[in-house]
Amino acid sequence: MKRLFKTDKWKISEDTVHTEDFRLAESMMSLGNGYMGMRGNFEETYSGDFHQGSYIAGVWFPDKTRVGWWKNGYPEYFGKVINSTNYIGVKVFVDGEEVDLFRNKVIDYYRELDMKHGVLTRRFTIVHEDKETDFEVTRFLSIAKKQLGVIEYKATAINHDSTITFIPYLNGDVRNEDSNYEEDFWDEIGRCADNFQGYLVMKTKDNPFKTPTFQVATTMKIVADGDVNEVTTMEKEEYVENSIQLKVKKGETVSLTKYIAVTTDRDYKKDDLVLRGYEILEEVAKKGFTSLLAEHQQKWLKRWEIADVEIKGDDEAQQGIRFNLFQLFSTYYGEDTRLNIGPKGFTGEKYGGATYWDTEAYALPLYLSTTDQHIAKSLLLYRFNQLDGARQNAKKQGLKGALYPMVTFNGIECHNEWEITFEEIHRNSAIAYAIFNYVNYTGDKDYLQQTGIDVLIEITRFWADRVHFNKNKNIYMIHGVTGPNEYENNINNNWYTNLMAKWTINYTIESLSYVSNEKKQSLKITKKEMSMWKDISEKMYLPYDEELDVFVQHDTFLDKDLMTVEELSETDRPLNQNWSWDKILRSCFIKQADVLQGIYFLNDQFTMDEKRKNFDFYEPMTVHESSLSPSVHSVLAAELGMEEKAYEMYNRTARLDLDNYNNDTEDGLHITSMTGSWLSIVQGFAGMRTFNEQLSFHPFTPEAWDGYTFNIVYRDHFLTISVGRDQVIISQNGPQLRIKVYGEMKEIDEDGSIAVQVPNLKGVY
Amino acid sequence: MKRLFKTDKWKISEDTVHTEDFRLAESMMSLGNGYMGMRGNFEETYSGDFHQGSYIAGVWFPDKTRVGWWKNGYPEYFGKVINSTNYIGVKVFVDGEEVDLFRNKVIDYYRELDMKHGVLTRRFTIVHEDKETDFEVTRFLSIAKKQLGVIEYKATAINHDSTITFIPYLNGDVRNEDSNYEEDFWDEIGRCADNFQGYLVMKTKDNPFKTPTFQVATTMKIVADGDVNEVTTMEKEEYVENSIQLKVKKGETVSLTKYIAVTTDRDYKKDDLVLRGYEILEEVAKKGFTSLLAEHQQKWLKRWEIADVEIKGDDEAQQGIRFNLFQLFSTYYGEDTRLNIGPKGFTGEKYGGATYWDTEAYALPLYLSTTDQHIAKSLLLYRFNQLDGARQNAKKQGLKGALYPMVTFNGIECHNEWEITFEEIHRNSAIAYAIFNYVNYTGDKDYLQQTGIDVLIEITRFWADRVHFNKNKNIYMIHGVTGPNEYENNINNNWYTNLMAKWTINYTIESLSYVSNEKKQSLKITKKEMSMWKDISEKMYLPYDEELDVFVQHDTFLDKDLMTVEELSETDRPLNQNWSWDKILRSCFIKQADVLQGIYFLNDQFTMDEKRKNFDFYEPMTVHESSLSPSVHSVLAAELGMEEKAYEMYNRTARLDLDNYNNDTEDGLHITSMTGSWLSIVQGFAGMRTFNEQLSFHPFTPEAWDGYTFNIVYRDHFLTISVGRDQVIISQNGPQLRIKVYGEMKEIDEDGSIAVQVPNLKGVY
Repeated sequence: MKRLFKTDKWKISEDTVHTEDFRLAESMMSLGNGYMGMRGNFEETYSGDFHQGSYIAGVWFPDKTRVGWWKNGYPEYFGKVINSTNYIGVKVFVDGEEVDLFRNKVIDYYRELDMKHGVLTRRFTIVHEDKETDFEVTRFLSIAKKQLGVIEYKATAINHDSTITFIPYLNGDVRNEDSNYEEDFWDEIGRCADNFQGYLVMKTKDNPFKTPTFQVATTMKIVADGDVNEVTTMEKEEYVENSIQLKVKKGETVSLTKYIAVTTDRDYKKDDLVLRGYEILEEVAKKGFTSLLAEHQQKWLKRWEIADVEIKGDDEAQQGIRFNLFQLFSTYYGEDTRLNIGPKGFTGEKYGGATYWDTEAYALPLYLSTTDQHIAKSLLLYRFNQLDGARQNAKKQGLKGALYPMVTFNGIECHNEWEITFEEIHRNSAIAYAIFNYVNYTGDKDYLQQTGIDVLIEITRFWADRVHFNKNKNIYMIHGVTGPNEYENNINNNWYTNLMAKWTINYTIESLSYVSNEKKQSLKITKKEMSMWKDISEKMYLPYDEELDVFVQHDTFLDKDLMTVEELSETDRPLNQNWSWDKILRSCFIKQADVLQGIYFLNDQFTMDEKRKNFDFYEPMTVHESSLSPSVHSVLAAELGMEEKAYEMYNRTARLDLDNYNNDTEDGLHITSMTGSWLSIVQGFAGMRTFNEQLSFHPFTPEAWDGYTFNIVYRDHFLTISVGRDQVIISQNGPQLRIKVYGEMKEIDEDGSIAVQVPNLKGVY
Repeated sequence: MKRLFKTDKWKISEDTVHTEDFRLAESMMSLGNGYMGMRGNFEETYSGDFHQGSYIAGVWFPDKTRVGWWKNGYPEYFGKVINSTNYIGVKVFVDGEEVDLFRNKVIDYYRELDMKHGVLTRRFTIVHEDKETDFEVTRFLSIAKKQLGVIEYKATAINHDSTITFIPYLNGDVRNEDSNYEEDFWDEIGRCADNFQGYLVMKTKDNPFKTPTFQVATTMKIVADGDVNEVTTMEKEEYVENSIQLKVKKGETVSLTKYIAVTTDRDYKKDDLVLRGYEILEEVAKKGFTSLLAEHQQKWLKRWEIADVEIKGDDEAQQGIRFNLFQLFSTYYGEDTRLNIGPKGFTGEKYGGATYWDTEAYALPLYLSTTDQHIAKSLLLYRFNQLDGARQNAKKQGLKGALYPMVTFNGIECHNEWEITFEEIHRNSAIAYAIFNYVNYTGDKDYLQQTGIDVLIEITRFWADRVHFNKNKNIYMIHGVTGPNEYENNINNNWYTNLMAKWTINYTIESLSYVSNEKKQSLKITKKEMSMWKDISEKMYLPYDEELDVFVQHDTFLDKDLMTVEELSETDRPLNQNWSWDKILRSCFIKQADVLQGIYFLNDQFTMDEKRKNFDFYEPMTVHESSLSPSVHSVLAAELGMEEKAYEMYNRTARLDLDNYNNDTEDGLHITSMTGSWLSIVQGFAGMRTFNEQLSFHPFTPEAWDGYTFNIVYRDHFLTISVGRDQVIISQNGPQLRIKVYGEMKEIDEDGSIAVQVPNLKGVY
């Protein structure tokens, strides 16, 4: 654990340059607007250790990978998000002395990420021998105009008359830290540096895998405020700059505003990119900095109005949940159905910035409740639009239907570890579950008819072909899989995988009743197929141990040397940093919820006794070395009345990055697992459920808190749920609403509210 | 199947330049002398497709590899044999027109590999417009002087007076075809081109893994025979050449002899390499080409005297077995205990040229019988000398004792697929088995005391730590392994692995009785340890199915969809080229003998009924997609009296490369599996066994043959076994010998022989 920043309800701030933990601080100070984003790099030169990172959503490169021995069907490349033109750069000089916070004497340093308004600012004083100069730097990526980034750099000469030189630049000569052989992914195809403006057009290199290249134009417009002495320009391969000298007198302030527009051939014609960029800049420069900032801030306030969670009596928790929501919304807000939520968002390169099942399993519920319905729907459409790629993945494995990829940018699998790519196929059911989740939450059954059923049918066809029938035992089995617990590989009959495959088949059959005959015909569903699906669903094997009365994670799990996490020593953990992979694989220790993940997803299908027995059996063996794990345990613990356990698990997700719990946040934030703290609060502490289209709550307040308030969007209703130690107040805007609270049906009037006493009983629904 | 060469008992020859299959032909025409070797590249320029390949035994490079996601304990590099200085090169010009068999008009082309004498020759006529020139090229790598390579290049002007220019050169600018990013592994550190001589010193690049670099000097000495007109020299980075112009008159012959010495810092001081090379060249040049050739040929004849197998009535089979023995001996003849037998020998780069368990499992028995005892012992000492590396491998996995690597140059594991590296641990028992094999065959029990026991104890310690005790079932289990059948990964209780672990423990305990108390003390064996070993051996779980009465390959094997290879269609095979890896893994199909490998190794411990039932069960599911598989099946089929099956399996190994059965010989020959045809004949058809230090035979003659004769070295005896359809004649040089033939004890007098009638009964021992 390492905490760099001050506790504050709405801000992340520091008053020292964390030269030793610069990368960690950079991750935390990341900004994004869904369209593009960047790590918290400094604008001016910084000669200490740092990790340059600015990324454009949907711009990626298929990097060649080689594994030991190639296997048939392996993806040919590893897709990765790539570092693109560094456009924030502004070199700064005071009478020729360069500003560099690593080398300079710095006083009164302050940096702040204002989460409420989405603005990053810095203030500091640089002392060059006897000259003191104050600086103030403001940066934001507009969520009102997605192509726009704005930097304002102010300098005040405290005790000297001098020349301040600003050198705003664009630099396309960037590398990925994770590239295999320091490869360069970009070629320059155009550049220009004029007075007070410039552009750089870069194109991703051609690749042997024939995936599309990307063309990105970065245009800049500079406004200088002060006594401009001289302006020069310079350009070289993959680089353009302006150099602007301003005379400044003692006590005076000069400033430079850099407007950047990033346009790509994902949205515009290749030939028009620079023109479009300049058009945007002309328009925004007319508006001016203040007005652009206001527009941007307004939009952030609007997001918070819907999504904010307020925690009383625990400012650390308050800061944690807001940081998580801020970074999630910075990564994705549903504007572009070609995009999804990468595990690191715009904050790093690890895991390739691609799409994982995390989105469907963990992020969708949050977006369903905290944003407009079309945003969640965008996540579903992303998968629908990639159905063809998923079909190709299945075909590559010699199977029917569609297999959604483990890692992808375009629907095609682009990660090549066989035990993941070929075997962690439970992900396919998560795509189906997301459709269920959306339809059940929103009531939008038309979605099934429109596009949902297409996806469901193809996933079901995959499962029907992937099972095999064991004649001896008269059951269907699924051999050779990796479950959600990636600390086991290539196992047989993973309970979760089998359960969710069975559920998917059933949900697909059920969904067909909401689909027109015409549509059914177009999907070419045969009677034989349907009866096969029913047979598989009926005879699907779900491992269960009578003696222990628990579901069994997979066929031979109980043959393992069963231990609890408590029996491990300090030096063993985290296992993935201390144990050889084979030792991890044959141990009983569970990386992330597996059987419990199934109980979480299909929560309404299990008895409290089943939930308790399985939780008691699996929880003590779970090491939670995936950041996605604790929230599921938190939600179940809450349901079982284990409030302390629920809070402990919540704590592992809430400030994971802020406190660098896993000691790896310098690589980037854990964006997709940031949903965990929200799930823990809303589904865990507040016990929100929506099964069978019935909204219900069962709230409690953790010991450490005085209470909490959150909002959810539910169909035509906007609800605010305020949980106190004694009383729960639920108010809503919308027509009359029937909900269950603590198992009892309640009615809330149109635009009305109710108050419910918190019962003494714990853990009973 | 593709056959390029003519059938001949002692030669591999072609009379056309196989431009379409040039690489395949290159593999076949490989030469080696245990110290160095090369593919059948042409000396002169060839502008068609080819694969440059010349290698020096023990010279390798740790190439960086990246897998998808790094796992703890992974080896950091993938060791690979590397292409080294091309020293055979001789450019040839006739009046300035370059000789190039891809572009020229070529008549009367003939190439021959003389296996009896280890010499490669070519004859051809080049027509340049109206000039006809005959060429004859002879090449050998001396087995009398290991550093020496010799090339004689003769040209005869048929119908013209002209100038023949020979440009012998050394070229260090070479790449590996399998390098990840076209890396260059070498730096030049010295070069010189003088008249009629030159040298090039190359050094492998420094690497981040701190493995030793290698320095290699290649020196050349040129002798020209004819009217030398002009000699010039040229050198540039990583390259030196001589250019020798000879005037030639119609009908005259001129020639160039290039002597090459390759010296490395594996044997000499770095600073002396060039000097040592020139010393060798001076000495050999004095002897001259004819005498060097004779010396070399004599040594090959000597090898054949001991090892030859003669087959009557089947010239294809005859050519096959000699080709296999020739290539094996070219790769390894026991001169250097730091070396081992790479799966491709000197014929290609695939599989990295490293050491695999193939050596112990398949090659050792051949060397035991066909060469001097010290050669087999060298293979054992190689592993003993790497015991420390094996200890490090075990430690990296958090385990006690020693784990011999799957792939290595120096004892340290250098391949990084977890399912192989971490899990294919049965290899450890093969090392123990080789010790047993050697001691049992030679009677050299002193070997146990000297070094054998050190290895056995550490392997046993590994097994004792790697098992886990299943309290419920009161048995020891081994979870998470890959058996010999690599078409299954990460399985539990692989019968073969468990069996061989148990056997190793028992053999170690047994071997301790041949070891002094002093030695035992130095090994720090405790009573507790011994009793633990006995407990594990007694309670080791060996999966068995009562209903089928077969040993079960691993825990859930019988849950698979069991099919036979016959049920597959043409388009399915080979599975590894047509099926996705996951499909292969969950299928029942077996890549190579697994349960049957165990029955083969511990052949004396199973009843004929057990052998038959397991053979009948597993053979039909075995696809033999490893070249190591058929020989084991051949030996067992022969034992079970299934003579046709035995012959069918033999045929799959005998001419695997000569007929390019697996369609992959262009990458290099399958050196380690070349032992398979010898094993099939000697242990299969002739039924040779040596268990319990009793030599025995049970021969039959395959239908297609008239008979066969082979020799074996057995302790003080040199035996010749001649098998005919009616009679078996066994003669020997050595003291009186008692052997079993067809189950009956026979005595052979000192230097005497016996004749035994072939009985009518089949398949009974």
